[in-house]
Amino acid sequence: MPTSTIVSELRELLEPDQVVTDDDVLEEYSHDDAEWAAYVRPLAVVRARSTEDVTRVVAFAAAHSIHVVPRGAGTGLSGGANAVENSIVLSLEQLTAIVEVNQAERYVVVEAGVINDVLRTEVARHGLWYPPDPASYRISTIGGNVATNAGGICCVKYGVTRDYVLGLTVVLADGSVVRLGRSTAKGVAGYDLTALMVGSEGTLGIVTEVTLRLLPLAGRDERAVIGYFPSLRSAGDAVALVSRAGIIPSALELVDRTCLRAVDEWQGLDLPGDVDTLLLAKLDERGTAGDELADEIARLFGEAGGTSVERAGDADEVDRLFLARRLAYPALERLGPVLTEDICVPRAAVPEMLARIQATAAEHDVVIANIAHAGDGNLHPLIIAPVGDDAAKERAKRAFDRIVADCLDLGGTVTGEHGVGLLKLDGVGRELGPRVVQLHRAIKDALDPHGVLNPGKAFPA
Amino acid sequence: MPTSTIVSELRELLEPDQVVTDDDVLEEYSHDDAEWAAYVRPLAVVRARSTEDVTRVVAFAAAHSIHVVPRGAGTGLSGGANAVENSIVLSLEQLTAIVEVNQAERYVVVEAGVINDVLRTEVARHGLWYPPDPASYRISTIGGNVATNAGGICCVKYGVTRDYVLGLTVVLADGSVVRLGRSTAKGVAGYDLTALMVGSEGTLGIVTEVTLRLLPLAGRDERAVIGYFPSLRSAGDAVALVSRAGIIPSALELVDRTCLRAVDEWQGLDLPGDVDTLLLAKLDERGTAGDELADEIARLFGEAGGTSVERAGDADEVDRLFLARRLAYPALERLGPVLTEDICVPRAAVPEMLARIQATAAEHDVVIANIAHAGDGNLHPLIIAPVGDDAAKERAKRAFDRIVADCLDLGGTVTGEHGVGLLKLDGVGRELGPRVVQLHRAIKDALDPHGVLNPGKAFPA
Repeated sequence: MPTSTIVSELRELLEPDQVVTDDDVLEEYSHDDAEWAAYVRPLAVVRARSTEDVTRVVAFAAAHSIHVVPRGAGTGLSGGANAVENSIVLSLEQLTAIVEVNQAERYVVVEAGVINDVLRTEVARHGLWYPPDPASYRISTIGGNVATNAGGICCVKYGVTRDYVLGLTVVLADGSVVRLGRSTAKGVAGYDLTALMVGSEGTLGIVTEVTLRLLPLAGRDERAVIGYFPSLRSAGDAVALVSRAGIIPSALELVDRTCLRAVDEWQGLDLPGDVDTLLLAKLDERGTAGDELADEIARLFGEAGGTSVERAGDADEVDRLFLARRLAYPALERLGPVLTEDICVPRAAVPEMLARIQATAAEHDVVIANIAHAGDGNLHPLIIAPVGDDAAKERAKRAFDRIVADCLDLGGTVTGEHGVGLLKLDGVGRELGPRVVQLHRAIKDALDPHGVLNPGKAFPA
Repeated sequence: MPTSTIVSELRELLEPDQVVTDDDVLEEYSHDDAEWAAYVRPLAVVRARSTEDVTRVVAFAAAHSIHVVPRGAGTGLSGGANAVENSIVLSLEQLTAIVEVNQAERYVVVEAGVINDVLRTEVARHGLWYPPDPASYRISTIGGNVATNAGGICCVKYGVTRDYVLGLTVVLADGSVVRLGRSTAKGVAGYDLTALMVGSEGTLGIVTEVTLRLLPLAGRDERAVIGYFPSLRSAGDAVALVSRAGIIPSALELVDRTCLRAVDEWQGLDLPGDVDTLLLAKLDERGTAGDELADEIARLFGEAGGTSVERAGDADEVDRLFLARRLAYPALERLGPVLTEDICVPRAAVPEMLARIQATAAEHDVVIANIAHAGDGNLHPLIIAPVGDDAAKERAKRAFDRIVADCLDLGGTVTGEHGVGLLKLDGVGRELGPRVVQLHRAIKDALDPHGVLNPGKAFPA
């Protein structure tokens, strides 16, 4: 079927303005925020406004052997939303209804296009809290968070997106709609298809509505402890000491020397002279228990060799201490396009992994800075290759492959929270092994026998 | 193939003593602890001692079109481990190795036959804690807990089995072995096949080894608050008040009038005269925060109409307060075989559901007592029909159906934590609807195309 016919038929199925073919829009919607991931131009961009719109588009695509690539805000970092050959990009950004906030049962029902931070603000008005906080929380959608099983800073204590998804409305590959999961606190009726959908990157179904479990907003007192360390090793020791003491902070972030220097050169951080690595812990226990834990963490930071250990007891102070962490990414982007790597290793292997990354950077002559959710062992090496420098880009790609290999070597996983998309297909193949990849294929074929939904993503062919 | 040949071939595949055909053993292993669920006699009982044993048995069964029914301790309450036609019951009780306790990463690797309480004791020696605490924790296996996604009393704060399963070793329907999941704190490599396996009741694969996330053992101070209420309605109000106050206790249990009377008649509880319903809350926050929460709960219990609100601040006192809860089940078993129902409704619907259950009991002239994880909305109506009274059993079955229907009517799920097995097949079919049941079938066929593993369980045909 020629593209013009596809477009005109789609315009008859929906409102005409929902089907866009302008060049700039096609370009913008052809890829997400992943550097280096392949993409092509889609046949059209379709802006769904309801679950019913999604069913129509999917049924149409299935009938005409066209691929559908679902997309939220396009903030993904693995190419999961990149357009593939012969595809419609189906944007869910306009599904923005907050359907229900249920205070008594502590859940919220939202459409897939609701921005994480909008949800957060809305439920806070009802005294409720949605913990998962990916760095993109101000701009990413809940649908995208669900598709990638997004993490964030507070995961170390509060878990990831999957831990909050109670139920889903999903459009299947034949255009039919199902409700999965529940809205009760517990439930074990049948297979956990909800969890199967979370993190499946739109390859098994398109999520249009999400029921999320919430926590009470009150009852947490925010505190922070910051420590400057003279070496990666001493910061790693501090992470291990905190873990062994049985303390689970609500954040435990690491910022390495390269990041600190980039932020310092840009904004002037007034850093102590011998600082190499920064560790930031947050705590949210109430009352004296919180004070005692903050004391204990400060003591352990010192014991591991941390200098200039500082504490903050209110939100503004906490924000000030987290400045270097917040500015790390924009400071590095000034140096060139940043490929945000995402690996997760055993906590105890964080120093070793960071040392290997430093060696890899030196060996391949590329700049690699590191921010890490150290309390989870989840590292984000930021690989920078200046625009237009193809040789540097080649070296950066080899460094990327090396990091993935080292991570597996240390018993890690090739993606902690960003997802497989296109960038991690090789790595995930190596991590899972052929038989588990076959299981993925079998499940994909069972749910999407004609390969309509986001083909080529999430697991290797 | 005649049964004698099957048995002799199995004895050649394994050690001869691993294949048992004694009448008493076949009878004992032909069913779990579910009352009323159908079962037949298996061809043989095979006691696996390793993952390799399981692969041999499954490959043999697949080659000869025999069914395999995996089984842990047989403490299930839904018939999930009941033998079906032409089946081998494969016991995993002898897979009892604790493979690794990793203190730094806070996980444990155990074989499927390890008893929940043995695991608990072992990890406590390393300062670690495994929260899920089904009532059967002293006798049920981790493999069975995983197969049913077991819950327990502390779920209201700490979640269910699935929330702790990081990785699994699974024998698939063709006898091949896969490792699913990870041992790192986070990870999103591929579909969440680990979560798909948890709660699938051995229909998609046989779990032989489990990697479980743990929490620090220290850092919790146990406290309890008990309240006696003059009516179901006032106890329900108390649950709602606690929830609205943003308090998440580590347990919030309800014991109804029928249970209390049965325990009182048996053991003498010295109950206040006007008591109808008992609520038990546990808290485990540290220090002053915990004291303040206990004060607040006591105040809310009083506000809802609770009389004789008592508090306990150490483990022995807490145990004493929980006596009526602990004795409820054995007290009722004295009256006849107990069918332990398991439904979960929205928290706010707990009083309405309990009222409907009382009405159902009266209408059908059967004894139904209730214990409930009230903080989760998870109710366990205990339906009692005296031995040999077939008319009472018929009435009890109709009451059971009515409870399931009422639960769905109130927006609940037909099984909160016991699983579908055989008892809830009809209810789950109604809850999920035909399209979602088709998805179950598609996934089952994709992973077990010849229907070797525990056929007829977990979802309706």
